[in-house]
Amino acid sequence: MIQVDQALSIIAENSCKMPIRKIKVTKSLGFILAEAIYSPMDMPPFRQSAMDGYAFTHSELQQFNVVSTSQAGDFSNKKIKQDQAIRIFTGAYVPDNLDTVVMQEHTTVKNKTVEITKMPARFANVRNKGEQIKENELVLENNTVITPAAIGFLACLGITEITVYAKPKVAIVVTGNELVKVGKKLPEGKIYESNSIMLESALQGIGIKKTEIFRVKDNLKATKRVLKSCLSTFDVVLVSGGISVGDYDFVKEALLSNGVEELFYKINQKPGKPLFFGKKDKTIVFALPGNPASTLTSFYIYVYPALKINMGFEVIHLPKIKRKINTQFENTSGKTLFLKGLYDDKKVTILESQSSAMLNTFAVANALIYLPYDVVNIEKDQEVMVVPLN
Amino acid sequence: MIQVDQALSIIAENSCKMPIRKIKVTKSLGFILAEAIYSPMDMPPFRQSAMDGYAFTHSELQQFNVVSTSQAGDFSNKKIKQDQAIRIFTGAYVPDNLDTVVMQEHTTVKNKTVEITKMPARFANVRNKGEQIKENELVLENNTVITPAAIGFLACLGITEITVYAKPKVAIVVTGNELVKVGKKLPEGKIYESNSIMLESALQGIGIKKTEIFRVKDNLKATKRVLKSCLSTFDVVLVSGGISVGDYDFVKEALLSNGVEELFYKINQKPGKPLFFGKKDKTIVFALPGNPASTLTSFYIYVYPALKINMGFEVIHLPKIKRKINTQFENTSGKTLFLKGLYDDKKVTILESQSSAMLNTFAVANALIYLPYDVVNIEKDQEVMVVPLN
Repeated sequence: MIQVDQALSIIAENSCKMPIRKIKVTKSLGFILAEAIYSPMDMPPFRQSAMDGYAFTHSELQQFNVVSTSQAGDFSNKKIKQDQAIRIFTGAYVPDNLDTVVMQEHTTVKNKTVEITKMPARFANVRNKGEQIKENELVLENNTVITPAAIGFLACLGITEITVYAKPKVAIVVTGNELVKVGKKLPEGKIYESNSIMLESALQGIGIKKTEIFRVKDNLKATKRVLKSCLSTFDVVLVSGGISVGDYDFVKEALLSNGVEELFYKINQKPGKPLFFGKKDKTIVFALPGNPASTLTSFYIYVYPALKINMGFEVIHLPKIKRKINTQFENTSGKTLFLKGLYDDKKVTILESQSSAMLNTFAVANALIYLPYDVVNIEKDQEVMVVPLN
Repeated sequence: MIQVDQALSIIAENSCKMPIRKIKVTKSLGFILAEAIYSPMDMPPFRQSAMDGYAFTHSELQQFNVVSTSQAGDFSNKKIKQDQAIRIFTGAYVPDNLDTVVMQEHTTVKNKTVEITKMPARFANVRNKGEQIKENELVLENNTVITPAAIGFLACLGITEITVYAKPKVAIVVTGNELVKVGKKLPEGKIYESNSIMLESALQGIGIKKTEIFRVKDNLKATKRVLKSCLSTFDVVLVSGGISVGDYDFVKEALLSNGVEELFYKINQKPGKPLFFGKKDKTIVFALPGNPASTLTSFYIYVYPALKINMGFEVIHLPKIKRKINTQFENTSGKTLFLKGLYDDKKVTILESQSSAMLNTFAVANALIYLPYDVVNIEKDQEVMVVPLN
């Protein structure tokens, strides 16, 4: 049995980035760039007015004949004489032989003549070609998280495709003769199977949509067969249940006989002690304890960072913050505890009913409180580690 | 011209929750419950063993004949005599006339006889029917955010559908003769249109997928026609560009002539001063300044809370945190500033290049720094308000 930190290290060492692939910029939110991007063009691509006003050639003249108009999107390089100006709008093309734009608030206009009442400096209000970014300059570094701003930036440079780390395909294997699919009638002795739906939504919450659910009875042969196929087709296999030491818990045996290397089994923690982590080729496997609250706690603490590594993230764990606990607490279990809690700006409260069999508390919690195995007495108002889940 | 806080109040007063609708639990992540949910069943639905061990009737006997096995999912109510026990596993049905389960670690078994070496209390290790939740008890309150835990909880109670607030359908209307769709060749004087893609991904980031993009030239008639159709079909209309005071900015006129009530126009801020907010019937309209960084800042500060209200959230703003600023700063503009910044655990840095025309900085920022108009001098290491964007 290992401690939480050892388990997290082993997971980090044995998880790796997914292969890279090209995707459309419009579909890239939340992906991680696998290659630096350089600009295919100057931006702005031409000399651009930064104001609504008049463009002219800076000289001693204060008065100009307005001979044409350049609206955003227009293009004309007709030569404009020294005593001429053009009406121009923000974002519009500034003809090559004009060097200055005066904002309209600093002019008076009569008929077709504009008089400048406050003369700007030469070159004022003209954005130069490539002023923001030049062709071949770095746009985004490797390993950048693609945000809406990054998508906008790429799009304005005309970039339509980028190279990112793929997201893993995840198999969810649910074991247990007692489990009935939600929506069906519940016979005596059975319960509804909820872990697959819960895990699928937790995966969806971190942007992983390629998931498939497999249901298998408590039977070694069936378990082996399903796992064999999952191990060869998926990047990550999450097994729910069948991993403690009851006579009918076949998952570990089925994994090992399929050539999965055991990297750890059992963590000194509650809930979720009988957690198994292993690997076959590039596929990683988590066998999660079947009690729903244990399953979900294990997901957030252990599966989440592995998936983040797969997707190319550098920050792989859920954030940890410190909050004052608002009750005294004694941890005499010798185990690291992950308690369902409610936190706000200042403090955190341990919720009642920490049963790992049910999700009542988890459904209203907004955090896990992380109490290490080696701290027995926690005073009221002492700062503790909190993992926000919202 | 109004201040930021006034604008936010007006938005909150004029945004309302979307109509309710029934959706599948499996598709409900991130929705808000519009009706409290009561349990359709007892959970556990039967008396359940909490351990792998032996079930028996508590008496003075210490030794029992093991007559059958109850695995999770099995069901039998065959009468078990006083001197008999059954082999039982975690989660399995406990027959009606047995009252106690002893964990296997506290027994020795020979042939078909189990001897209890450490006698548990009567009723030990048996989870009662309805112990976690009883039929008709409250499962989740109205206004609960549906998390993976909530989905698991609902599923384990056999609930397949819930009533939530719908998500808004959002129209994105992009104006500007200068704009060319990404992927096409860029003629002189034109630039690529990136705001629609950026806004679409920002909407996607908060779970809104029902979006449609409309592109319109700088022309009053076309703008009026497109807006008219959007106002009658969408819950929220986001217009990008065409809202400042240039001769070719037709958006405001087109909105008003379509019966949109102006709720505010122009905020004392930078970037994003010429922001328009209005309403027609239940459709709200934001006309966002067209410069990409202004558009996105306006989205995060003003559009985001309106959408959150639409979706039924009680917490509607992006979180605000405090960080020490690591340079002295003077805000002599008299305007509230939203600066692109990088924050970490302790401090925040103002990024170079705050131009509203480009997204270079925004693409690498992880926060907006919120500096109110009425604070001129900000000392190094003074705490400032930061809006994290990650």
